[in-house]
Amino acid sequence: PQVPYSASGYPEETMLERSKDFYTLMNQRRTVRFISPELVPREVINNAILTAGTAPSGAHTEPWTFVVVSDPETKHQIRQIVEKEEEVNYLQRMGVKWVEDLTKFRTNWIKEYLDVAPYLILVFKQIHGILPNGKKLTHYYNEISVSISCGILLAALQNVGLVTVTSTPLNCGPQLRLLLKRPANEKLLMLLPVGYPACDATVPQLKRKPLYDIMVHI
Amino acid sequence: PQVPYSASGYPEETMLERSKDFYTLMNQRRTVRFISPELVPREVINNAILTAGTAPSGAHTEPWTFVVVSDPETKHQIRQIVEKEEEVNYLQRMGVKWVEDLTKFRTNWIKEYLDVAPYLILVFKQIHGILPNGKKLTHYYNEISVSISCGILLAALQNVGLVTVTSTPLNCGPQLRLLLKRPANEKLLMLLPVGYPACDATVPQLKRKPLYDIMVHI
Ligand SMILES: Cc1cc2nc3c(=O)[nH]c(=O)nc-3n(C[C@H](O)[C@H](O)[C@H](O)COP(=O)(O)O)c2cc1C
Ligand SMILES: Cc1cc2nc3c(=O)[nH]c(=O)nc-3n(C[C@H](O)[C@H](O)[C@H](O)COP(=O)(O)O)c2cc1C
Repeated sequence: PQVPYSASGYPEETMLERSKDFYTLMNQRRTVRFISPELVPREVINNAILTAGTAPSGAHTEPWTFVVVSDPETKHQIRQIVEKEEEVNYLQRMGVKWVEDLTKFRTNWIKEYLDVAPYLILVFKQIHGILPNGKKLTHYYNEISVSISCGILLAALQNVGLVTVTSTPLNCGPQLRLLLKRPANEKLLMLLPVGYPACDATVPQLKRKPLYDIMVHI
Repeated sequence: PQVPYSASGYPEETMLERSKDFYTLMNQRRTVRFISPELVPREVINNAILTAGTAPSGAHTEPWTFVVVSDPETKHQIRQIVEKEEEVNYLQRMGVKWVEDLTKFRTNWIKEYLDVAPYLILVFKQIHGILPNGKKLTHYYNEISVSISCGILLAALQNVGLVTVTSTPLNCGPQLRLLLKRPANEKLLMLLPVGYPACDATVPQLKRKPLYDIMVHI
């Protein structure tokens, strides 16, 4: 059934103000690879994940599972899996060009933040659903939907002053899925360590493209 | 070079408050297929796109182009392309099952909002970049990056009280790319009609999954 959509609009001046403020807030987001071990209230993380769950999805399939890991032993096992695969990625799999493209980020296969961050959020996409009768439910555009949901999650984290590293750990999906006991219809899409920034955190100096480089008006 | 990351944190109570408020705001987002023709200030749209441009991207490639269409003639041509392909999708290409899965949304191939909405934002992913010397620059994870950016765009639109229809028009990409004169390295990912909701807009009655259905804590 259809229901009326009721929303409270804003006067134009307020819209303009709000659009600027949100841009300023989001423009301060950076990928921060130095995360503080300081604890973060669970409820803040829960609310961020609820927010991610408001994302649109193809045919409203909501094809996402957020696995939040705070157990130190599990975090360490995740670190071991990721570092082992990343070392192979850097040294063998990906070739000189990929490694060169990444030098400016000073990333390598050592991921201390996987032990240190109070939370690791592992985002799984459900490549299909399972109906009560056991049949498969097609999940149209599941990867796009879950990525949109991650964008909203990043906004929610930024909005409360938490930082993360958006990452797609190459070739670690199957091992991490087994470690976390996720079913076969779920595939790892992203791994987000979450916490406060370390007090001495640094970030690569980067510029963002200006509006005229990303927008065309017709 | 690395630079210090400085961010203003919030006290725990404020974080909790902010996380709830942002959830409440985003939870009011709905896909609204009835859009008002009322004009929307250009600067609000510009700020929303700037905000989308703050998204993370694989190796900071920023692989997105946002084409904002307000010209009525171009909007109408887009409508014609989309409706022609969608009719084929519904009647032939996709099969009975897909059409059934969509009945509850009451969608069909008639997309009046493509004429009516004051703006159509067509989001292109750049599948590779082009360096000043003409060589190709690999865009790692370009589709995921652009989808994350769309998630942030949806948040920015919701934050100012605008509505949209997240859509991935099947098989229309090549024709729309030519119509909008985008280069061959750009592929259409999403089409977002944007405006105020029509005053008599309705939406399908939908529930979102509760936290325990989308989150697992370890
Ligand atoms: C990748 C993607 C593609 C979508 N494609 C369409 C579409 O072609 N037409 C449409 O009307 N809605 C489309 N939707 C919107 C979904 O149907 C909608 O998000 C879902 O029913 C949940 O409703 P809500 O957005 O109001 O929460 C799409 C959503 C996503 C994420
Ligand atoms: C899909 C995707 C994958 C990424 N993978 C990694 C990664 O494996 N390791 C890492 O340190 N950063 C990763 N990043 C972060 C990017 O390097 C970062 O977003 C980019 O350099 C821009 O910096 P900013 O996020 O501070 O704006 C990834 C980002 C995206 C969107």
